[in-house]
Amino acid sequence: MTYRAPVEQISFILNRVVAFAQLAQTERFAEATPEMVEAILTEAGRLANEVIAPVNRNGDLEPARLENGSLRSSPGFAEAFRALAEGGWIGIAASPEHGGMGLPQALNMAVNEMVASGCLALQLNPMLTQGQIEALEHHGSAELRELYLPKLISGEWSGTMNLTEPGAGSDVGALTTRAEPDGDGTYRVTGQKIFITWGDSDVTANVCHLVLARLPGSPAGTRGISLFMVPKYLPDAEGQPGAANSLRTVSLEHKLGIHGSPTCVMSFEGARGWLVGQENKGMAAMFTMMNAARLGVGVQGVAQAEAALQKATAYAAERVQMGPIIQHPDVRRMLAESRAEVFAARAICLACAVALDMARATGGADWAARAALLTPIAKAHGTDVGSRVADIALQVHGGMGYIEETGAAQYLRDVRITQIYEGTNGIQAMDLVGRKLADDGAAAMALLDEILDGAKAAQSSQPAMAHQLWQATEFLRETTLELLAKPLPDRFAGAAPYLSAFARLLGAHFHLRAAVADGSACLARIYFSRVLARNTADLAIALVGGADLDALEDGLLAGRMAG
Amino acid sequence: MTYRAPVEQISFILNRVVAFAQLAQTERFAEATPEMVEAILTEAGRLANEVIAPVNRNGDLEPARLENGSLRSSPGFAEAFRALAEGGWIGIAASPEHGGMGLPQALNMAVNEMVASGCLALQLNPMLTQGQIEALEHHGSAELRELYLPKLISGEWSGTMNLTEPGAGSDVGALTTRAEPDGDGTYRVTGQKIFITWGDSDVTANVCHLVLARLPGSPAGTRGISLFMVPKYLPDAEGQPGAANSLRTVSLEHKLGIHGSPTCVMSFEGARGWLVGQENKGMAAMFTMMNAARLGVGVQGVAQAEAALQKATAYAAERVQMGPIIQHPDVRRMLAESRAEVFAARAICLACAVALDMARATGGADWAARAALLTPIAKAHGTDVGSRVADIALQVHGGMGYIEETGAAQYLRDVRITQIYEGTNGIQAMDLVGRKLADDGAAAMALLDEILDGAKAAQSSQPAMAHQLWQATEFLRETTLELLAKPLPDRFAGAAPYLSAFARLLGAHFHLRAAVADGSACLARIYFSRVLARNTADLAIALVGGADLDALEDGLLAGRMAG
Repeated sequence: MTYRAPVEQISFILNRVVAFAQLAQTERFAEATPEMVEAILTEAGRLANEVIAPVNRNGDLEPARLENGSLRSSPGFAEAFRALAEGGWIGIAASPEHGGMGLPQALNMAVNEMVASGCLALQLNPMLTQGQIEALEHHGSAELRELYLPKLISGEWSGTMNLTEPGAGSDVGALTTRAEPDGDGTYRVTGQKIFITWGDSDVTANVCHLVLARLPGSPAGTRGISLFMVPKYLPDAEGQPGAANSLRTVSLEHKLGIHGSPTCVMSFEGARGWLVGQENKGMAAMFTMMNAARLGVGVQGVAQAEAALQKATAYAAERVQMGPIIQHPDVRRMLAESRAEVFAARAICLACAVALDMARATGGADWAARAALLTPIAKAHGTDVGSRVADIALQVHGGMGYIEETGAAQYLRDVRITQIYEGTNGIQAMDLVGRKLADDGAAAMALLDEILDGAKAAQSSQPAMAHQLWQATEFLRETTLELLAKPLPDRFAGAAPYLSAFARLLGAHFHLRAAVADGSACLARIYFSRVLARNTADLAIALVGGADLDALEDGLLAGRMAG
Repeated sequence: MTYRAPVEQISFILNRVVAFAQLAQTERFAEATPEMVEAILTEAGRLANEVIAPVNRNGDLEPARLENGSLRSSPGFAEAFRALAEGGWIGIAASPEHGGMGLPQALNMAVNEMVASGCLALQLNPMLTQGQIEALEHHGSAELRELYLPKLISGEWSGTMNLTEPGAGSDVGALTTRAEPDGDGTYRVTGQKIFITWGDSDVTANVCHLVLARLPGSPAGTRGISLFMVPKYLPDAEGQPGAANSLRTVSLEHKLGIHGSPTCVMSFEGARGWLVGQENKGMAAMFTMMNAARLGVGVQGVAQAEAALQKATAYAAERVQMGPIIQHPDVRRMLAESRAEVFAARAICLACAVALDMARATGGADWAARAALLTPIAKAHGTDVGSRVADIALQVHGGMGYIEETGAAQYLRDVRITQIYEGTNGIQAMDLVGRKLADDGAAAMALLDEILDGAKAAQSSQPAMAHQLWQATEFLRETTLELLAKPLPDRFAGAAPYLSAFARLLGAHFHLRAAVADGSACLARIYFSRVLARNTADLAIALVGGADLDALEDGLLAGRMAG
């Protein structure tokens, strides 16, 4: 069975669960009418089913490779990418000024989900390009915007993010790539970057690298980092790819999954670059790109979970072992819990995107705070669900799941990176309990109040779940306040279980809203009794603190009998 | 960093946690003195470190392959296997009558763990041979025992298990391979078997297949299945490999992991076979082999968790990102929880093995019931911990974990099969709540009483944990009784979370015993507050039943908006 884009379900979540309709009430997104949304989703679903999904296995079997220093992408990738670009899909949320459609990110994320279900390795390319478009829209000079945005939006060129260096991963501030002014307003960038997704491409005519580097004499750490546009080919007077820049793809990584996505070691050797934004403010500009990408990665998790789960459900319906295994209670439990989790994770991502859109459309600080709060949750939880569901989907296949030809294993291998890149899920959890609660929890409390309103609204039609949601909300509120009273290291020790619990509460909130909206509470009940039920434990663990971890000597941690 | 066998910790668990010493009090295992145990573990640890572990990566990079129908194993595998065989390691638990050492399974499992940490793909071969030795010891005729056991115990020949067919996986009773009497006391076996681990081998001179097949006119289902010994080469008058039997290896599977272990499609084409045990009683004989293998697979989970965790801990100590990441609270939490889980899972497996040994040494029905109860828990929980810890170990490596050269991904890929083979973990859970509680929970209650005794004994030195253990035990007891009152489908729906909770309770029991024994409670505290804390949720979920799963229509399960 092949992937079938869940257009109807995504549409239901947008319209009935995450209040997408309010966007069409704003001036900025007035065009995002229900008819427009329906048309976009239907068309994107078709593209994902018929054009993108069919190349997924090619990417796995015939990975991208380097041939004399140039990339050769997997069979069919170039054609699939062309279809995506020519359909205008890369720029649907980009500014109309440079050829975009100016539609909400929420709609873009819905489209991205379907494309990423079809082929994660390929979808990474347009996703990063979209992040670069946003970064340039916010931080690029008029010249850079004029030159690059039309090409990126049309998909003629693609964009990359160059942060990581061998000694600078989660600690971006440790990077050593340097940029020296060339006297003519441009810079010479020198250094090595690793883990550069789609660092070279034969599906686009140029590759535009946004590179973090240090100017001479800049402060140490993250406050001394600037951002540069460093194209593979220097644009000529007509804005077409001209002379080759002094950079090269040194090698590709051999990875657990996403074989179709080239992960490059890049060497910049006095490559010409243009400053993006202000000197030493590169992190701020990069964060624009990274925040968009973080939500996008959460969506990738949902996407792969959906595709893997569809495959497992179809298999379970067909496979007969003392009756179809979909009727066996334990198999049905695995599928049902997964289905409920995918629904919840999708709603969280789309709610995050709606908040982002509302922040942009209204300029409201509350919406911006909401989006900032939801971003690490959407990323970490979406990708945790992605790996968990892909794992369960493999298990449902039994021995067949372990055989590569079945295809279940590819989902597990591919999705695994989403818990790591764009900031590991541990980093997301620290972001949540650190920066995102730094307003003394104001944004979190506002969200909890909204969840309580939802519980109240459901009281008459779904009293049992409304009550459970109310209890769970109050428990999370108390835990949040206790967590805030702790020193940061203790908060960090509890960050991951706290994030999981927060995500489940949000999932329950959206499930209840869906149950009230369509009158069918089956899936919501499964989520409440089998998923939300785990919150008490996670919140208790979130409050344990870090003393017991510190007390465990490194020797014991390593498995020796004494420190 | 390379694997270092945790000899000291295994020795501690045997001596201080799972009461291995009582074995030396029996006549059968009088030789298993502390000195003997120490010597065996030390030597096996050296073998695992120096001989087995070095070939692990070869197996992944250069998988076993077929060359003109014959197997070519991965580089170095033959030499490593030879060292294992010549050291006498395959037969340490086998009967001395045929060249074994007659030592306890508990010691054998401890050795197997270290070998499986070194190289899972290779260790599968001797593990299955050991299972075959047991099956022959219990069910083989004197002639078969005389002929095969010395060769299997010495590692000259290896053994396989042939159950699965394309339409008969978990439903073994559906198999169609047939055996027809040849008139001379032997049989002609015809049929196709799939997923046959080490179905061919170039590391041994003969491959002995134990094959499940149907005799003419036998009853349908599992009551009409007989077991046959079908060697690759027919033994000649001197008992040496003679004429080739009519069977062949059709192909090898391309798998997610354990690439060094050939997974074969076998075709038996009127191959000559000898009946093992009685006609139509093949399942009973095969269960001897499968039960041994189930515990052995649980041990494999522990083994891979240990190896992966060692790697992650070493990486975390070296990797500096704003200080060594082993000091970061979230990384330390992941490592510490994993270390506590590995300790618990190892103790459960070894306790299961001790029960098995006591049953054999004393003939006591209580010990046999204990072993039967613990086997599905040891298998499912050991392998769940294996996958979970290998996953965390990869995550600790960040982006490097996703790169195959790092080696963390291989553990994740390799260990994943252990949750599936020898009966999926779902099957284990059903076995636990079905067959293993079919004594109205008597064996379970006896175990819970013993855990309470442990809590009482810890009351003075570890009052807080003793109290928590007491509460957790009583809660599990109540849940068990409630579960027993439910119809089987409802029990099955809760089987997996029930098994997890039971395993955690056992883990806590052994952690507390360890804390009392060595006075250091650091790891136990981490287990109680961060792992055992999840039991309440799992036990609540175990009681939800299956009505909500049945109410969810297949369409909704598949992600459509209506059934």
